[in-house]
Amino acid sequence: MTLVLSPSRVLTGDRPTGPLHLGHYFGSLQNRVRLQAEGAEMFVVVADYQVLTDRDVADRLGEYVEELVLDYLAVGIDPARTVIFTHSAVPALNQLLLPFLGLVSVSELHRNPTVKDEIAHSRQSAVSGLMLTYPVHQAADILFCKAGLVPVGQDQLPHLEATRTIARRFNARYSQGGSPVFPEPEALLSQAPLILGTDGGKMSKSRGNAIALGADEDETAALIRGAKTDTERRIGYDPAHRPEVSSLLLLAALCQGRDPHAVAEEIGDGGSAGLKALVTESVNEHLRPLRKRRAEFAQDRGHLRQVLADGNARANEVAEATLREVTTAMGMRY
Amino acid sequence: MTLVLSPSRVLTGDRPTGPLHLGHYFGSLQNRVRLQAEGAEMFVVVADYQVLTDRDVADRLGEYVEELVLDYLAVGIDPARTVIFTHSAVPALNQLLLPFLGLVSVSELHRNPTVKDEIAHSRQSAVSGLMLTYPVHQAADILFCKAGLVPVGQDQLPHLEATRTIARRFNARYSQGGSPVFPEPEALLSQAPLILGTDGGKMSKSRGNAIALGADEDETAALIRGAKTDTERRIGYDPAHRPEVSSLLLLAALCQGRDPHAVAEEIGDGGSAGLKALVTESVNEHLRPLRKRRAEFAQDRGHLRQVLADGNARANEVAEATLREVTTAMGMRY
Repeated sequence: MTLVLSPSRVLTGDRPTGPLHLGHYFGSLQNRVRLQAEGAEMFVVVADYQVLTDRDVADRLGEYVEELVLDYLAVGIDPARTVIFTHSAVPALNQLLLPFLGLVSVSELHRNPTVKDEIAHSRQSAVSGLMLTYPVHQAADILFCKAGLVPVGQDQLPHLEATRTIARRFNARYSQGGSPVFPEPEALLSQAPLILGTDGGKMSKSRGNAIALGADEDETAALIRGAKTDTERRIGYDPAHRPEVSSLLLLAALCQGRDPHAVAEEIGDGGSAGLKALVTESVNEHLRPLRKRRAEFAQDRGHLRQVLADGNARANEVAEATLREVTTAMGMRY
Repeated sequence: MTLVLSPSRVLTGDRPTGPLHLGHYFGSLQNRVRLQAEGAEMFVVVADYQVLTDRDVADRLGEYVEELVLDYLAVGIDPARTVIFTHSAVPALNQLLLPFLGLVSVSELHRNPTVKDEIAHSRQSAVSGLMLTYPVHQAADILFCKAGLVPVGQDQLPHLEATRTIARRFNARYSQGGSPVFPEPEALLSQAPLILGTDGGKMSKSRGNAIALGADEDETAALIRGAKTDTERRIGYDPAHRPEVSSLLLLAALCQGRDPHAVAEEIGDGGSAGLKALVTESVNEHLRPLRKRRAEFAQDRGHLRQVLADGNARANEVAEATLREVTTAMGMRY
C-alpha cells in the first residue's frame, strides 16, 4: 500500500543570490519535483527583496533571478503546474506584512533563533529592519496562498512556527464567527542529505566550493579534482571519521540511485583518484539531461520572462483574493 | 507683496481612532484647507492599519473611517483637489515598506524618539512589530507620492527625519547615474495653538475631554459648562498661570478670529460663567456652517464611499507609478 499525499498547496522558494548547486538539488529541488508529480499545487517564491544588500548581489539581481528560473525549469519544475513568482511583483502579498506585523511583538521578532543566527553570521555591521521582520514576510509568503505544507529544514522550523502563530492569532482576533481565514501550515521536514562543499565545508556558492547545476562538465570535473579527500587508498563510507570522502561517495550514490557503501565497495583500493573519477562521471551523467534542458531554455529568454510574467499574474490573483478576505475580516471594506 | 507657496505635493493624514475634535481642527485641518487653497496637491492618508489593536477600535473601524471622511469634507477638504485614501486599499504603497526596511537598521528603529515615546505610553504589554516599523511605513506614505512638504508638529520631526534618511539612502544606493527617485521632503512646522481638553489635560478623544467637530450644540455647551476653570472673577489671558482659562479664551479667539487678550477684556469680571457662555457661543457659531455641511454629507453614505473609492484609485495610480520606478532602480524588472 502506498501512502498518497493528498493534493495540497505547498510553498517553497529561494533567494536569488546566485546559481543553485547540488546541495540545493538533492536537498530541496528534487523534493519539489516529487511533490509536483504527486499533484501538489506548488508556489515557488523568488525572494528578491530578501537578498543581502551587498552591492555585488544587487547589481546582478536580474541575472540571478533569470538563472534561478532556468534552474527550476531544468530540474523539472513545470510552470504549467507550479507558480513561479517574484516578491517584487506581488504587492497584495507584501501588504500582508502590515496586519501580520501587528500580531507579533518586538521581543518575539528578536527571539527568533534563525534571525538571531543570521544576525550573528551577518557581515553587515548593522542588522536591517528587513532582516528582523523576515519571518513575518515569510509568513506572508506561506499564508497568501494558504499553503498547507511547507518543506523545511530543521533550522527553519522556528520560521514556520512563527507563521503558525500568526495564522492562529489572526484567526482568533479577526475570524470571529466566520470560518478561520488561514490554515495553520504543517512542516514537511526534509531528510536532506548532507553534501559538503569540495573544501569539506558547507556547500555554498559564496565559498567557491559548490558544484552549480548549470556548470559544464569540465568545470564540474575541475571542481571535483580539487576536492579535499584523505590519503587512505581504501575508499570507505564513514561520515563520522572520513567526512569529505563520504560526502563524495554520497554524491555519486545519489546520482546513481545506489547505496554509498556499494559505491565505496566498487572503488575499493582506487584511492582518491578512483573516487574522484567515479564521482565526476556520476555527476556529469546524472546532470546531462538536466543541463541539456537548461541550455535549451537558456536560448529562449523570452520564454523565461513569460514564465515569470504568468507566475506573477497567477500569484497576484491569489494574493488579491486573500487580501480581500483579510481586509474584510479586519473590517476594512468601506 | 504676498509670498505664494509654489504648488507642491503635501502628505498629511490621521489614524481613524474616533471623531476629530477642535484640537485637530485648529492644529491641523485648517492648515490643510489653507494649503489646498494655495494650490498644493494634497494626499490625506487614513492610516487604517496603524490603529491600536484594542478590540473596541478594531470593531468600529468602518464607522471611524466614515466619520473621518465626513470630518474632512465638513472642514472643506475638497476631494476634487485632494486625494483621500486608506492604507489598506493601496498595496503598491505598502510594498515600499520592504525596500525601505532594508535601508534602516534595527537600532535606528529602536532609537526613534517618537516610537520610544509611544512605546512608553502604550497600554499594550508588548510592543508590536507594526509600532516599531511605523516610521518606515510613514516614509512610504510620504515618498509614494513624492511629497515635498509634510506638515508636522515638533514631536513628529524625528519621523520626517527618518523619511529623509530613507530617501537619501535609496537615492544613493539605487539611483546611480539616473536622477534621484525620491525628493527629500521638507517639514512644514505647524504653529499649532495649544488647546487643552475641558479637564485641563491634553485634548484627546479617549479622555472624554474633547469637543468633537461633529458634536451638536447642546453637547458642546455641556462639555464647556463642565470645563475646568478657576475661581477668579476677573478673566485674563495668562497661559502660564491660568492655563485652563487661557485655553478657553484662545478657543473663543480662534473661533472669532480675534486676539485672546481682547476676548478676555470683553468678558472682564464675568467670571467662569461669562467665559463659558462666550466660548460656547463662539464655538457653536464658528462650527455652525461646518456642522451643517457635515450633516448634509452624512445623509449620503454613497457619496462618502465614492470619495474613498476615487481617492483610493488615484492613490493606487500614483503608488503603482512610484513602485515601477523603485523596482526599475533596484534592478527588479525581469
